[in-house]
Amino acid sequence: MTRWRHVTVVGLGLIGGSIARALRARGLATTIVGVGRSRPALRSAVAAGTIDLATEDMGQGVTGADLVVLCAPVGVLPGLVRAAWPHLAPGALLTDVGSVKRGIVEAAEACPGRDGVLFAGSHPMAGSERSGFGASDPDLFEGRLALVTETSRTDARAVAAAQKAVAAATAFWAALGSQVRVQSVEAHDRGGAMISQLVHLAAYGLVTSADEDALPLVARGFADTTRVALSSETLWADIFRENRPALLDAVARYRAVLERWEGWIRAGRWESLEAELGRAREVREKLS
Amino acid sequence: MTRWRHVTVVGLGLIGGSIARALRARGLATTIVGVGRSRPALRSAVAAGTIDLATEDMGQGVTGADLVVLCAPVGVLPGLVRAAWPHLAPGALLTDVGSVKRGIVEAAEACPGRDGVLFAGSHPMAGSERSGFGASDPDLFEGRLALVTETSRTDARAVAAAQKAVAAATAFWAALGSQVRVQSVEAHDRGGAMISQLVHLAAYGLVTSADEDALPLVARGFADTTRVALSSETLWADIFRENRPALLDAVARYRAVLERWEGWIRAGRWESLEAELGRAREVREKLS
Repeated sequence: MTRWRHVTVVGLGLIGGSIARALRARGLATTIVGVGRSRPALRSAVAAGTIDLATEDMGQGVTGADLVVLCAPVGVLPGLVRAAWPHLAPGALLTDVGSVKRGIVEAAEACPGRDGVLFAGSHPMAGSERSGFGASDPDLFEGRLALVTETSRTDARAVAAAQKAVAAATAFWAALGSQVRVQSVEAHDRGGAMISQLVHLAAYGLVTSADEDALPLVARGFADTTRVALSSETLWADIFRENRPALLDAVARYRAVLERWEGWIRAGRWESLEAELGRAREVREKLS
Repeated sequence: MTRWRHVTVVGLGLIGGSIARALRARGLATTIVGVGRSRPALRSAVAAGTIDLATEDMGQGVTGADLVVLCAPVGVLPGLVRAAWPHLAPGALLTDVGSVKRGIVEAAEACPGRDGVLFAGSHPMAGSERSGFGASDPDLFEGRLALVTETSRTDARAVAAAQKAVAAATAFWAALGSQVRVQSVEAHDRGGAMISQLVHLAAYGLVTSADEDALPLVARGFADTTRVALSSETLWADIFRENRPALLDAVARYRAVLERWEGWIRAGRWESLEAELGRAREVREKLS
């Protein structure tokens, strides 16, 4: 059942901790090494038997690994790729869990080519409002979607390596219980802007727009719609920065919809409005 | 325990049905009459023992009632007030459950004054995505907020009657288990635009803006944020129409927030953005 001899997880927060625990619980790795800057998290992970070895040194942590997973805020990932790369063994797979893929993919592609070092970006669609190793869960990825991104390469050798990396990353997430879908980096980041980043921005905006006087009166609709505005602004400002071009496109689309509807409300074009609201309802009904 | 001799509920959907069932379950009314246009709902309500008498005739249904509750979409309420008014007995309380109060309050105030006929607008903050008598629930109002609106009158006799109506409506909702808060019509409708109607419009807009390609990939954040876009577009276009001025103000405020943030994203002013997102998070954290 062991699939990896030595896995290194960089960053032992909610996601990294859950990956390490899932690997351990499923007996998928002989040795699990944790790299991090939070000594309490590293100590907890060793004490829990989740990881075998903890280090704050990236080079030491990834040397000899056949799988390295970078679990950090998106703004930090490009630097981590560059830090890990020189220490990676031939045949090793390097992947990550960032919710925006362009920056890290560009960083990986700019690294000096080394035969057999494989990189594929990943984005597990799993999370929680909670954070930190204490909130980690070995079943976090079970039944959830994991996205793996591919880039369009033209060089035949690069294509073969990229395909091998995508296959290896796909196998990794599948082993953790996820359903895997492969997407281009562009489609991933465009989709993320629409269905995740814009939604967060809109929710923060609804809270900001509301009269504080009215807030004690909020009903379930407001609470549900703005739940994601409980998320860390530091994390999300970072994500917005990483995906700026796609997010600006998404915001422009949203603004155009709201402006059209605002015009219809002003002009009393209720039938036009009702028709578009009805189409939105039908689309929404197709989701679980 | 009986507080009302004869209560008439006009409209036996989710809200009207729940009111009738709550009155019955709590033994608060000797006779409960249902007025409606849906014969199956009326038959179900009689068969369930929820109402004693069913009629499609408003005049017949409200004659002799000491409490009449109008439970219908907001666009219909002004007409129902005018239809019920001539049949109301002196001392009767007329109230409603509409989520926008201006239209019905204006309709009631335009009715020829009759000594001792009391009107106060109500808005129970309780509901469900489900609708119809079959979804009704005698505990729907238990522990929930009910808003009762007051208008600023200058004529001393009108002030006294309005105060009596507000007190009677307050007693009614309290008897159903609600916590009651009295607001001016203007504050109610402004608050409703911000915390309810704008939120629905924004959620429908997020669904409309999203690439259909990306929708199979949605995570919990998108699903929660757009849950209210499952609501009936007919009901909500009607509510938007009723509260047009306040809704347009709310949309303009929201648009201003989004435009400011869009400018900051474009200009890379991440610290300004993060600061406002952080304030929104803090406000949101104060809500349950």
